[in-house]
Amino acid sequence: MSGETILGDWGGSHLRLWLRAGGKVVERRDGPGIAGLADSELALVEAVEGWDAARIVLCGMAGSRAGLREVPYLECPATSEAWKAGLVEIQLAGLSVAIAPGVCCRDEKGRPDVMRGEETQVFGALGFDPDLARGEPLFVLPGTHSKWAKVKDGRIASFRTFITGEMFALLAGSSLLSAGKDPAGEAEGFAAGLARAADMASAMSSLFEARAAQFCDGRTAGWARGFLSGLLIGGEVRELAPAQRQVVIVGEPELATRYSAALAYFGIESRTLDGELCAMAGLELLDDD
Amino acid sequence: MSGETILGDWGGSHLRLWLRAGGKVVERRDGPGIAGLADSELALVEAVEGWDAARIVLCGMAGSRAGLREVPYLECPATSEAWKAGLVEIQLAGLSVAIAPGVCCRDEKGRPDVMRGEETQVFGALGFDPDLARGEPLFVLPGTHSKWAKVKDGRIASFRTFITGEMFALLAGSSLLSAGKDPAGEAEGFAAGLARAADMASAMSSLFEARAAQFCDGRTAGWARGFLSGLLIGGEVRELAPAQRQVVIVGEPELATRYSAALAYFGIESRTLDGELCAMAGLELLDDD
Repeated sequence: MSGETILGDWGGSHLRLWLRAGGKVVERRDGPGIAGLADSELALVEAVEGWDAARIVLCGMAGSRAGLREVPYLECPATSEAWKAGLVEIQLAGLSVAIAPGVCCRDEKGRPDVMRGEETQVFGALGFDPDLARGEPLFVLPGTHSKWAKVKDGRIASFRTFITGEMFALLAGSSLLSAGKDPAGEAEGFAAGLARAADMASAMSSLFEARAAQFCDGRTAGWARGFLSGLLIGGEVRELAPAQRQVVIVGEPELATRYSAALAYFGIESRTLDGELCAMAGLELLDDD
Repeated sequence: MSGETILGDWGGSHLRLWLRAGGKVVERRDGPGIAGLADSELALVEAVEGWDAARIVLCGMAGSRAGLREVPYLECPATSEAWKAGLVEIQLAGLSVAIAPGVCCRDEKGRPDVMRGEETQVFGALGFDPDLARGEPLFVLPGTHSKWAKVKDGRIASFRTFITGEMFALLAGSSLLSAGKDPAGEAEGFAAGLARAADMASAMSSLFEARAAQFCDGRTAGWARGFLSGLLIGGEVRELAPAQRQVVIVGEPELATRYSAALAYFGIESRTLDGELCAMAGLELLDDD
């Protein structure tokens, strides 16, 4: 165990930093996401100013082309040991910065997929709960691009990305489907969307119902918003968790609640682990000797 | 047959006007779409200025809440006679304006759907080609919101909306999938998208491949754009035209070519009718005595 270290999860839209001293996290900070940053090195130096640490360990987009240094992806099946061995160390304004690799995989149909940051949460969750590392859990990490990761023998065996969060934001915020922010009717719309997801060949064919139901059935724009959420998350669950008994959700509470409800609708149990705690636990694995 | 009449198809994004004299279209104009117009009455009066006609016949969003006057939807199965009988006549700055109803339907699962304007093209196509009116053709009208309409005994029996065009615009233009406008690789991407649509349970699960393939397989942003187009249109065709031998495409050439290629990929023949000619033919049905 070293002295003070800074741990960081640097995503496209935000940076989360933790100061670790004596094996414990003692302070937390937020900073800007990598997307759109003109100078990521400068942003990092500013974000850690005043913290007295000789080493920074970063995961996420820090290792992307737009980040501090491009770090090659680790191929699935991925062990936490290989992941740690893939750390790239650079020097930056007198600091030693270690950047974790992301993970890539290719499914049986040849489809490529990538993640940067979510692997940290999965490895962190496995360290958290040895039962998960011994079993064959299916994880979902909801977000802009949600990741569904299969773990076997403590490794990330494979994973698949669904762009549900981004799709919802685009459709609810920028489309002609007229989904409004007023929450009136939203819960009822969410339930209707889940039911539709269970019923139809694809979510795509029911998206327009969000608009048509406002004309034909007097639904509110809030209902339409809920409907889109239920339809998209329900379609994702139906496709990626068939015949599954339990799924482990790693994420923030509001989204986790939606995924838990969608999983329950399809008869699947879930347990939720806090996304930030899992990220911290994963980064600690990288920092520990 | 009356004297001079103005025919118009007023959509959300543009207005198309034709001056009809002696039973023939003699002039054509374009104007602004209904979406975002502060004063649709004024916009119409300005758009027809200088044309000497006592009557205007309009279809599309002119009959929507945001248009000149809300005209109730006609329910499926919809005949062209009932559609014509549903015309609402208003007076506007000395002009007699007839506004056509849209059409609504509900499928066996209770899903509502609506169209305003596309019914004009379908009825126009049927008038164009008596063989279509006698058969049971399946029409696709590609666009921002593409409509798939089943015709039987000369009626619009049912239809379904797929928001493929809007989805493509949002994903290719505003998402994190990094689909670029440079056409390099686009045709190859389109073919790969069609193949993926045939292969997968849903288009949703492969959207992220547009991004991952750039990291893992060195694909270009143009390839990603083509891939998204092929994946979305392919998914639509696969879902809405199973076991179909022929589909009639009504639309503009560039989109029609894409749909024709997607249909051919799934072993379905297609013929294409020009969307604007079909709209004119449909409006003429409303104008004829």
